[in-house]
Amino acid sequence: MKKITVGLIGFGTVGSGVVKILREKKKLLSEKIGIEISVKKIADKDISAKRNIKVDSGLLTAKAQDVLDDPQIDIVVELIGGINPAKDFIIRALKQGKNVVTANKALLAQDGKELFALARDCNKNIYFEASVGAGIPIIKALREGLVANNFNDVFGILNGTSNYILSQMSDNNYTFQKALAEAQAKGFAEKDPTLDIEGIDSAHKLILLTYLCFGRFVDLKDIFLEGISNVSLDDINYAKELGFEIKLLAIAKKENDSLDVRVHPTLVPESHLLSQVTGVNNAIHVSSDLAGELLFYGPGAGQLSAASAVVADIVDLTQDLKAGLFRPTLNAVADPAITRLCRIDEIESRYYIRFMTSDQPGVLAKIAGILAKSNISIASVTQKEKRKAQVVPIVMVIHGAKEKDLRAALNMIDKMSVIKQKSVAIRIEEE
Amino acid sequence: MKKITVGLIGFGTVGSGVVKILREKKKLLSEKIGIEISVKKIADKDISAKRNIKVDSGLLTAKAQDVLDDPQIDIVVELIGGINPAKDFIIRALKQGKNVVTANKALLAQDGKELFALARDCNKNIYFEASVGAGIPIIKALREGLVANNFNDVFGILNGTSNYILSQMSDNNYTFQKALAEAQAKGFAEKDPTLDIEGIDSAHKLILLTYLCFGRFVDLKDIFLEGISNVSLDDINYAKELGFEIKLLAIAKKENDSLDVRVHPTLVPESHLLSQVTGVNNAIHVSSDLAGELLFYGPGAGQLSAASAVVADIVDLTQDLKAGLFRPTLNAVADPAITRLCRIDEIESRYYIRFMTSDQPGVLAKIAGILAKSNISIASVTQKEKRKAQVVPIVMVIHGAKEKDLRAALNMIDKMSVIKQKSVAIRIEEE
Repeated sequence: MKKITVGLIGFGTVGSGVVKILREKKKLLSEKIGIEISVKKIADKDISAKRNIKVDSGLLTAKAQDVLDDPQIDIVVELIGGINPAKDFIIRALKQGKNVVTANKALLAQDGKELFALARDCNKNIYFEASVGAGIPIIKALREGLVANNFNDVFGILNGTSNYILSQMSDNNYTFQKALAEAQAKGFAEKDPTLDIEGIDSAHKLILLTYLCFGRFVDLKDIFLEGISNVSLDDINYAKELGFEIKLLAIAKKENDSLDVRVHPTLVPESHLLSQVTGVNNAIHVSSDLAGELLFYGPGAGQLSAASAVVADIVDLTQDLKAGLFRPTLNAVADPAITRLCRIDEIESRYYIRFMTSDQPGVLAKIAGILAKSNISIASVTQKEKRKAQVVPIVMVIHGAKEKDLRAALNMIDKMSVIKQKSVAIRIEEE
Repeated sequence: MKKITVGLIGFGTVGSGVVKILREKKKLLSEKIGIEISVKKIADKDISAKRNIKVDSGLLTAKAQDVLDDPQIDIVVELIGGINPAKDFIIRALKQGKNVVTANKALLAQDGKELFALARDCNKNIYFEASVGAGIPIIKALREGLVANNFNDVFGILNGTSNYILSQMSDNNYTFQKALAEAQAKGFAEKDPTLDIEGIDSAHKLILLTYLCFGRFVDLKDIFLEGISNVSLDDINYAKELGFEIKLLAIAKKENDSLDVRVHPTLVPESHLLSQVTGVNNAIHVSSDLAGELLFYGPGAGQLSAASAVVADIVDLTQDLKAGLFRPTLNAVADPAITRLCRIDEIESRYYIRFMTSDQPGVLAKIAGILAKSNISIASVTQKEKRKAQVVPIVMVIHGAKEKDLRAALNMIDKMSVIKQKSVAIRIEEE
């Protein structure tokens, strides 16, 4: 049986999972593909660390160079994450004539364009299924399964940590701080949770989905980004009374000639499948011209789910290597109708708004007056009774309004003496 | 640019969609794959029928033979459906050295084993993405994206017509007959709706999913089959009061050494994503050892969604043909732990039960007594008040019980004079 040889760079959680799967599923995989996949070298800067898998010490090396320079290694699996030295390793692997599998969304979001072009020049491929939605085969679906489709939008819950925190707040009435602390204790959140809770990880993944659906790489700095650290338990509960859940959504939408790309907490109606996605799960919704509205759901993190995707990528590559040919991954083609990015103040949306007001007559009239002058139309309003409270919340849903007009109106409203805290506005997504 | 030549057999709804996509997406596809796909011949027994697409009359032929015998045609797309002559056409195509794309679930469910073996012998492939879930790329996901996984179960809503009918009953309080008539008027149901509403179409698709997940073909006659024609509006409403929707589920589950394969109306809790799948949509849930619990959702029917999948299959084949090589589709490997099929009377499940009783004292005690003797434990009970009614419904949810024990108990109960109609039992799925 033909043998394909793999080298790993990075022997952490996902790397150990990959080795475990290649070992335990050896028979299954060779029966399916008619090829034996063998791991020849594993590089990690700490080769003495205790891991939940034992490997022959001859496989281990502290130098990535040993993997990159080994002429017998066909596929380099990069799992160290981060920009450097991962980028350098991938470049060297391609130049040495090796195919690459990676889960590195941060790197591909930043330098994917350059790396994919280099791979083409080298007649090699970079596969990256594990970089979005862990074991959910979303990249294969967008690239191959939906190959004939043009896309109107792609959006979803792309970060398991944030979704876990929001779910605990919604289901168990936890504050953000308590839910975060619990997520950290359970290992779902890092000690420094910034990347996850501020939406950066979601944005990295969104850049890759946007590339696959619309054929262009968007810069992280051009994505409107709002995390979940300011989502209050009150807003979650008021939203629920109105029939919504609050989710951190990553959204890319085609709007005429522009592409609207953003990450922020969003009210999603209870009747939408995304509102039912709880815990560390992810879900990606795509709207396509032929296959219609699709949703892909599953765990967004986990050793074996990410490793499942890495192994699927390795198998895809072995199929080509077996035949000794280069079959380039399908190009994402730039949608010619899109000529620019949409600025956040251009978007039109429905909004949930919470005003914190002093408990005195005429407050609602003043707020409604300013909104009316700005041509912003109120869909529903609830004044929350808080006994003995000095500050009373007024919760509104407003009909479709331009972000720019809404922001201007809120600025005026927030200057009134009856407004006791900065008003909160959260976008609503109902498609 | 290299050219791959396609011939169609069957120029109905999906066939017209395929031609439309290959024409309108010509530029997109050739940019993605670097190959031009051209349709050389289209066979249909009625070539004079009016269609929503115009084709050069030179392309059309009334004889499938013209497609099968054309040495320039690389891929034969079979879209006539049914067993004969479709099976004969596919066999001849393979023997003539052509790859095959088909959406024919009835044929593959019956003769897939034979046809896939023949394809292997001929060094050709049969692709069939459109046969389950239309444009949802579920077959590619199971075969390639989840290649390293073993599966515990696969189940879902596989028939859009039935789901449309059940949704209209649940959302708009329609009777089954009214919902069916509406579905027929809208073109979602055939004049003879048997295949859809009696679960046969779902079973065909389930056979294919079972093959992909567990590596074995199950005979249609070995699948326990119950359609939706006996689902009453009352049961839908009572289930809703208990927090469930009724869905027609197709289920394949590994239970120790056996495989449990069945299609029947099922109570699904509101909190499960499947309960939110309405209208003609489909959704497939898989439980895998590595990637976890996944769900794939989208329209289960429609000209362009099915054609989207057919074109994706054609593109997959062109990738191999371009390189002039045979890359066989990945084998489904028989799960060695499974040695037999599970009989319906062996299964254990929770159940919803509705008894129709005479309105007199002691009825509930009699029913509960028989259940207790059979070791069947009641989780909840509601006696519905019906003013002036002679017959009173008693609705129960029972804890996990063996189907065999439950059937025996219901037989005894139904013989009592206080029971006025055959009791209704519907299985509950909560995973």
